[in-house]
Amino acid sequence: MFKGHIVLEEVSPDLLMMFRIRNVLLNTRTKYQEVQIVDLHGFGRALILDNYIQSTELDEYIYHETLVHPPMTSHPNPMDILIIGGSEGATLREVLKHSCVERVVMVDIDGELIEYTRKYLETMHKGAFESEKLRLVIGDGYKYVMEAGPDQFDVVILDLTDPYSSEIAKKLYSVEFYMGIKNILRPYGVMVTQAGNSFFYADAYLEARENIREVFDNLLEYWAWIPSFGYNCNFIMASDYKESLSITPDEADKRLSKRGVETRLYNGDYHMSLLKQGIIVNREFL
Amino acid sequence: MFKGHIVLEEVSPDLLMMFRIRNVLLNTRTKYQEVQIVDLHGFGRALILDNYIQSTELDEYIYHETLVHPPMTSHPNPMDILIIGGSEGATLREVLKHSCVERVVMVDIDGELIEYTRKYLETMHKGAFESEKLRLVIGDGYKYVMEAGPDQFDVVILDLTDPYSSEIAKKLYSVEFYMGIKNILRPYGVMVTQAGNSFFYADAYLEARENIREVFDNLLEYWAWIPSFGYNCNFIMASDYKESLSITPDEADKRLSKRGVETRLYNGDYHMSLLKQGIIVNREFL
Amino acid sequence: MFKGHIVLEEVSPDLLMMFRIRNVLLNTRTKYQEVQIVDLHGFGRALILDNYIQSTELDEYIYHETLVHPPMTSHPNPMDILIIGGSEGATLREVLKHSCVERVVMVDIDGELIEYTRKYLETMHKGAFESEKLRLVIGDGYKYVMEAGPDQFDVVILDLTDPYSSEIAKKLYSVEFYMGIKNILRPYGVMVTQAGNSFFYADAYLEARENIREVFDNLLEYWAWIPSFGYNCNFIMASDYKESLSITPDEADKRLSKRGVETRLYNGDYHMSLLKQGIIVNREFL
Amino acid sequence: MFKGHIVLEEVSPDLLMMFRIRNVLLNTRTKYQEVQIVDLHGFGRALILDNYIQSTELDEYIYHETLVHPPMTSHPNPMDILIIGGSEGATLREVLKHSCVERVVMVDIDGELIEYTRKYLETMHKGAFESEKLRLVIGDGYKYVMEAGPDQFDVVILDLTDPYSSEIAKKLYSVEFYMGIKNILRPYGVMVTQAGNSFFYADAYLEARENIREVFDNLLEYWAWIPSFGYNCNFIMASDYKESLSITPDEADKRLSKRGVETRLYNGDYHMSLLKQGIIVNREFL
Repeated sequence: MFKGHIVLEEVSPDLLMMFRIRNVLLNTRTKYQEVQIVDLHGFGRALILDNYIQSTELDEYIYHETLVHPPMTSHPNPMDILIIGGSEGATLREVLKHSCVERVVMVDIDGELIEYTRKYLETMHKGAFESEKLRLVIGDGYKYVMEAGPDQFDVVILDLTDPYSSEIAKKLYSVEFYMGIKNILRPYGVMVTQAGNSFFYADAYLEARENIREVFDNLLEYWAWIPSFGYNCNFIMASDYKESLSITPDEADKRLSKRGVETRLYNGDYHMSLLKQGIIVNREFL
Repeated sequence: MFKGHIVLEEVSPDLLMMFRIRNVLLNTRTKYQEVQIVDLHGFGRALILDNYIQSTELDEYIYHETLVHPPMTSHPNPMDILIIGGSEGATLREVLKHSCVERVVMVDIDGELIEYTRKYLETMHKGAFESEKLRLVIGDGYKYVMEAGPDQFDVVILDLTDPYSSEIAKKLYSVEFYMGIKNILRPYGVMVTQAGNSFFYADAYLEARENIREVFDNLLEYWAWIPSFGYNCNFIMASDYKESLSITPDEADKRLSKRGVETRLYNGDYHMSLLKQGIIVNREFL
Repeated sequence: MFKGHIVLEEVSPDLLMMFRIRNVLLNTRTKYQEVQIVDLHGFGRALILDNYIQSTELDEYIYHETLVHPPMTSHPNPMDILIIGGSEGATLREVLKHSCVERVVMVDIDGELIEYTRKYLETMHKGAFESEKLRLVIGDGYKYVMEAGPDQFDVVILDLTDPYSSEIAKKLYSVEFYMGIKNILRPYGVMVTQAGNSFFYADAYLEARENIREVFDNLLEYWAWIPSFGYNCNFIMASDYKESLSITPDEADKRLSKRGVETRLYNGDYHMSLLKQGIIVNREFL
Repeated sequence: MFKGHIVLEEVSPDLLMMFRIRNVLLNTRTKYQEVQIVDLHGFGRALILDNYIQSTELDEYIYHETLVHPPMTSHPNPMDILIIGGSEGATLREVLKHSCVERVVMVDIDGELIEYTRKYLETMHKGAFESEKLRLVIGDGYKYVMEAGPDQFDVVILDLTDPYSSEIAKKLYSVEFYMGIKNILRPYGVMVTQAGNSFFYADAYLEARENIREVFDNLLEYWAWIPSFGYNCNFIMASDYKESLSITPDEADKRLSKRGVETRLYNGDYHMSLLKQGIIVNREFL
């Protein structure tokens, strides 16, 4: 029987999902958001921010591999990486798999949240927060990008909450912010952002895409089904260097191998399939 | 406020979805199954069998294009087509887009259901039931296949309910049935089946796949997100002729053009991305 | 498994109920309200207005006996009765059980709704609409009361939707309206109104009670649990004649017997228990 | 918006309720049952055992006053009291209001649960566990009753989980157990038990009632709406002494006053209304 503790989540105004909670490890409010860390039946340990499931133990690898490896592998030699958001530490974990990486700066506004994820989400960060390559900055990602000098990073990864799910994230999808990103990227630099869902929230998606297009010469869109989201999550990669978005499947596999990257899902074929499939931007509900 | 009439659907034992009903057009039980045809907020007209949403006006094209065009386009010249199931008429609609098709036999066990879909799901079948190329057989698809003589069809499309959702469909995923399909296929023949969901229902998926593998020399797996299903729907194509599963994107686009096929989603790139992405067969829940 | 068609109803902002729909007989919108007539698992045929369950076959007798018989039995000789609302016809059915009744005027604003209830809710009205004592007026109850001359009725029964559930009903809980009621009541006349729920909606309840108190010299409050409402439904009886609200249990039983009234629940003891129990007006949620 | 953490509770096989959780203070499993202590929106602090809400801060006084004061007030001079169950300490709190009480034995099988309620449910027990009149026994109530000698108690209060909600409670509704109760009661002794819900679970209710009837000469039934239960909760009082079940409202008020009992709801009128209202035992669902 489906009863007891439930997470009731709004996928869209016309679609709710219900998950079964086995245990609640944390239920609090930081300065910035409501934070819940729970064990779900079937999905395992999960992070919930402002009532939206961000990651579950069962399927977070799909999200994090799909966010991180396309830009990391596309770049010929990513050494300095910037992550904005990514509090679970799983984006960091994937970045560090690339042996060429020398330095990762991770900026998250919510230091209290990071303390919780370090404590409760070990299955996600796998100790990545201990890496000597990491410089963890508790602060405003927008401000950090705007104030950093030029030519600092090879890859910038925006692992944010959805623009429609919270107020924190909105300015992190703006033209000004993308110009800041462009400024701190080195030659051949690549950025990627998660971008919500283009089927149920086309307007927010289109606005983010338009903003990126205004700033970067080249842009690639892709999406992947994340079971605990109930939908395909969208991503947008961008670069001013066409060659940084043009890797072949074979070359991707070679780079992964050379950099010692082991994944559960991502490889050269998956990379190509992501970029060829064609996302759906749905603007009409019935 | 999310209230009023709701469809509460079990995606997995640990995940429910709720849709909002605007209107109920039909709520009955045929000899074979519970049938509901409703208008959903956001998703439009929808067919529900035994409490599982089969198709909605909003997104059925994703399912039907992804089911039909990969095998139809892979085959060099499909003239005689067999559809088992597909009561909405939308699979038929997509098949008929290929101008090379001369004859479609569609076998559905539930004649009463077909009457309802013809009446209420015009947005899905778009009048396809009127085609002179169609021979509609109300009967048991299993029996039809077993009793048809050899070398009858170029493409066989199995548009069935999930093996775990109803008793009707189970034998339509069996080795015996696939051997029957093989028998009625002509040289270069291709079959495709929808195959439920390999993430939440791995066992049923693996059993179907194993059964197909026992019978056919070549097999391709793919999946695609269907918003109203809440998950990626799996498909399996099979053929004894490797060349019938090896089309290039360019050749696919050429065939579509030559046959006058217009689609909303499917094209050569989409075809390739489907086959390269790698599906996930999940066997461990937490 | 609790799945399929559901009615999701808001009992309070902090409490929802879900019922299982077996069949939908009607789902429409009249000029005045959304109307659904469904068969519920467990509760049988049900009338739903603007997403609130009004009556179910299983338990409507509790509501209707508790609304009608306290005022009817309290009055020494009710001959002319006015019902405002009561579209199911079940209030009418209970009134007609009192053989002393000579005339019932029933005023409901929604003629289309009455057509539906006559057709689909035979288990509720039990043919009461055919009574020769009935004068059915399709029109605005407020206007009817205001324009009727004085001294017309012995008992007035207000069988309305909740003041907080729809806009239609609000003026039917106003001081002006109660003064109109007072005007059309004869000596010894009694009125009764259903009054929502004083536990979850104290403000609406208190406002109605205050308005009645301004107009009538004597007032009695009672409530009873209606299973399909999920709460105790409140009622308020009022009269300018103290003796019309002061019946003993024995006298109540005698009057029922003399008038040939047969009930499933109501009797003299029940009458007294209603008036002695003390309702709860809850003004503080946590 | 009704979303986030939810308690989904089965009121009956055809009716679910959903409450909104603000905070989870405890979520564990003792040797005997699942225990959750949460803060609910609207209802405040709540105790949940095996997925059934037992008590909420908002409305527990309705349940506990209605359970305790009818038998306590009916008895002319209750000095020695036995409570079986009642882990929240609120039954104890109400018993101790009667100044004539000299000794209360409270037997609960789940010592771990008592530790939690003492810690988290101060608003319910109000420090009653500190009373010098209390002897708290962690142990099997059935065994305790069977092994206690005769003529020990004036009032026995069975504050149990429902017979249909858990296995623990079943033998505490048996003939053997009621014979044990009869044995330990002194002359004029009275027992009371909560008895689930006679509308949705008639069979369990009737079985309990029949068992009591076999053992005691006199029996009184009553029920009261408990908002967080979603239904009227039934109670059965029994005694071999008719005079112990025959108090008048005036005498009840006098006894309350003499014993210094202050209540929010219970008084002589409420007592009488409980006993006169007539409960509904529903045996037919539709």
